[in-house]
Amino acid sequence: MIRRIAAECVGTAFLLAVVVGSGIMGDRLAAGNDAIALLGNTIATGAGLVVLIHIFGPVSGAHFNPAVTLAFLLRGEADRRTAISYVAAQLVGAVLGVWAAHAMFAEPIIQVSARLRDGPSQGFAECVATFGLIGTIFGTHRSRPEFTPVAVGLYITAAYWFTASTSFANPAVTIARSLSDTFAGIAPASVPLFIAGQIVGTFAAVGFFAWLFREDCPQ
Amino acid sequence: MIRRIAAECVGTAFLLAVVVGSGIMGDRLAAGNDAIALLGNTIATGAGLVVLIHIFGPVSGAHFNPAVTLAFLLRGEADRRTAISYVAAQLVGAVLGVWAAHAMFAEPIIQVSARLRDGPSQGFAECVATFGLIGTIFGTHRSRPEFTPVAVGLYITAAYWFTASTSFANPAVTIARSLSDTFAGIAPASVPLFIAGQIVGTFAAVGFFAWLFREDCPQ
Amino acid sequence: MIRRIAAECVGTAFLLAVVVGSGIMGDRLAAGNDAIALLGNTIATGAGLVVLIHIFGPVSGAHFNPAVTLAFLLRGEADRRTAISYVAAQLVGAVLGVWAAHAMFAEPIIQVSARLRDGPSQGFAECVATFGLIGTIFGTHRSRPEFTPVAVGLYITAAYWFTASTSFANPAVTIARSLSDTFAGIAPASVPLFIAGQIVGTFAAVGFFAWLFREDCPQ
Amino acid sequence: MIRRIAAECVGTAFLLAVVVGSGIMGDRLAAGNDAIALLGNTIATGAGLVVLIHIFGPVSGAHFNPAVTLAFLLRGEADRRTAISYVAAQLVGAVLGVWAAHAMFAEPIIQVSARLRDGPSQGFAECVATFGLIGTIFGTHRSRPEFTPVAVGLYITAAYWFTASTSFANPAVTIARSLSDTFAGIAPASVPLFIAGQIVGTFAAVGFFAWLFREDCPQ
Repeated sequence: MIRRIAAECVGTAFLLAVVVGSGIMGDRLAAGNDAIALLGNTIATGAGLVVLIHIFGPVSGAHFNPAVTLAFLLRGEADRRTAISYVAAQLVGAVLGVWAAHAMFAEPIIQVSARLRDGPSQGFAECVATFGLIGTIFGTHRSRPEFTPVAVGLYITAAYWFTASTSFANPAVTIARSLSDTFAGIAPASVPLFIAGQIVGTFAAVGFFAWLFREDCPQ
Repeated sequence: MIRRIAAECVGTAFLLAVVVGSGIMGDRLAAGNDAIALLGNTIATGAGLVVLIHIFGPVSGAHFNPAVTLAFLLRGEADRRTAISYVAAQLVGAVLGVWAAHAMFAEPIIQVSARLRDGPSQGFAECVATFGLIGTIFGTHRSRPEFTPVAVGLYITAAYWFTASTSFANPAVTIARSLSDTFAGIAPASVPLFIAGQIVGTFAAVGFFAWLFREDCPQ
Repeated sequence: MIRRIAAECVGTAFLLAVVVGSGIMGDRLAAGNDAIALLGNTIATGAGLVVLIHIFGPVSGAHFNPAVTLAFLLRGEADRRTAISYVAAQLVGAVLGVWAAHAMFAEPIIQVSARLRDGPSQGFAECVATFGLIGTIFGTHRSRPEFTPVAVGLYITAAYWFTASTSFANPAVTIARSLSDTFAGIAPASVPLFIAGQIVGTFAAVGFFAWLFREDCPQ
Repeated sequence: MIRRIAAECVGTAFLLAVVVGSGIMGDRLAAGNDAIALLGNTIATGAGLVVLIHIFGPVSGAHFNPAVTLAFLLRGEADRRTAISYVAAQLVGAVLGVWAAHAMFAEPIIQVSARLRDGPSQGFAECVATFGLIGTIFGTHRSRPEFTPVAVGLYITAAYWFTASTSFANPAVTIARSLSDTFAGIAPASVPLFIAGQIVGTFAAVGFFAWLFREDCPQ
């Protein structure tokens, strides 16, 4: 169990280092063109996710995301105690990852974001983003599990662009990014809206895809 | 059957949300450089398609496209009733997906595009784009079916750039995009030309590739 | 045999339509920033190649390139008559593909490039580019043939950037691109230098990799 | 053994030609926007690495990197004599690759970089970058070895953006890039800091992942 928790913690830390670090790099180099900064941020995050899921997946399943752990819990594929340990490890790892990115880029370690991301359309975007992420995981897992890591990376690549919120789709990522006043940051005041959207999207996806894939009917 | 129709509808909705949403994101961030906006639009669409075909393919075949359904009908691999249901589901889903993108980006839900895409070269481009798409599907499906979803994503990635029309290659996508006055929009007046090109390309591809792959000769 | 020749011809036509078409698209949209135009050109060409090799490979081997056909001839894996037919089909297809790109983009069909690409470093770059392409094909073909199409697409993606000539690496492509006065064009006066570099690179690669992979020793 | 050493030497030469060449190309075309130059540099390096590891991996294992050779030595999977030969071949190849890039781009062959990359955060970034690279190799190698080449390419794609140093993560690359006063260069004065970070990262990764994957316990 200690190894599984370490995998969730270190994997989530790397994920946040990738998200926040590549955001800082893009922002510093892009001379004010946010689309170019987002391109770098997107490519790094998508590629990094594929690798991290491959490395840590065989140990812990590579959730890196309380919404994903919640979905496994709702489906009865994780027990409550494991779920709580995973979420705690994800939260700790996420914050450490943000701080590691700050250290690499010679930023002050402790920051709080001032970037408001508000309004009902942002909440709706997070709901859609998380719905799609959960659908990606369970949709590929049943028919072609060896492709799931690549599918998750490709999904987030797309979702950085097609959702107005740039697809956080992950409560641990959302909380940790509130501690970075850089390109990838989110003001603490916007965090509850994002997490609410993510939880609604998770429940909706677990229900819809269980029906779509006839998982309610044995056979 | 209800699940297959739901898969076509939801999958096509997601496809349009990706196409239109990433177009809006690119356009808003790219500070007027349309090549950068198109890069974001391309990467999101290509990556998104690969994922959506993996999720919904095992349920419905993941056509998401009346031209593809027509090609299966012409080859005798789909019956007329299924084809009609699929096309209806694709059209409904496509419109819902455009509206979802508008909602996520806090745009007015109901819009009509004013962006004319006219002239014989645009019609020819759609014919080429659809010919290549149908060739991609049937060419990979016969020799390496597990690669078809990735091949379709890569094909559209290329076709966004090498066809002058940015490769709609899909009548449902064409109609739905006429309802968005954003980066990805097309004026209703240009829709018939595009759909005509797509239908010609579909017939040409079904004929040519059946000959090329000797599918006319049993054994 | 007619189907194999058709596959080489149509496949090479599509390849040139992708290369020249995406060059025009990038150039028109990139507002003078050639790096952004080349990014679009690169992504389209790499993705397109992967798809075209998958579609036409099972029919003809998907050479699309006289240097590749020459390499198979040198290795004794193709006979002279097939090689001549292939090269003729590639040349015809390449020119048709350039013209198709011009038609899609409403350019004059018949053009001659005025873009000089001269000097010994360009010739050396083509030699390196072709050496690497032949190494990619034979290196992956022996140990993991199902990956060869993706490897070729990735190689060209890299070679567009790391060779000073943007890696033509293909005599049919070189000749055909002299007929397009657009982003991807090359002045006829520069064609012999490029083809000479490509032929030297082909011979060097066939010799080196046969030695490296011990193909000279049976067993 | 001569073939294995040749594979390390030629493979590392190609890797440096890709890294330095695509840096020059990006820098020349990007009109001063370093994020666009880095995008081209990233895509070329990631794609090129995947191909090079596929070509040379079956011959030598495709280390191309003294830190990787050190990791295999620490794990007892390489003997000291092979390791020394490999590192020598990598260093020679790396320098030849830089010079080949200069020749292709008509740059003076012999250069020394004036680009300082200093400070503790750069050293920490190299430590993180190398830790992740070693984790990528051993993490994928144990559970899905056929994916390792793609994983390494994706990891470097991400690491070019998320580490403040753009992830050299390779002592031979670091030394050779000090001989290029172009986009990818590093001043000789910064080389020791980078190599120190890389060695610390290698030791940390070998220890951590051996524990995580329970490789200390037989069974």
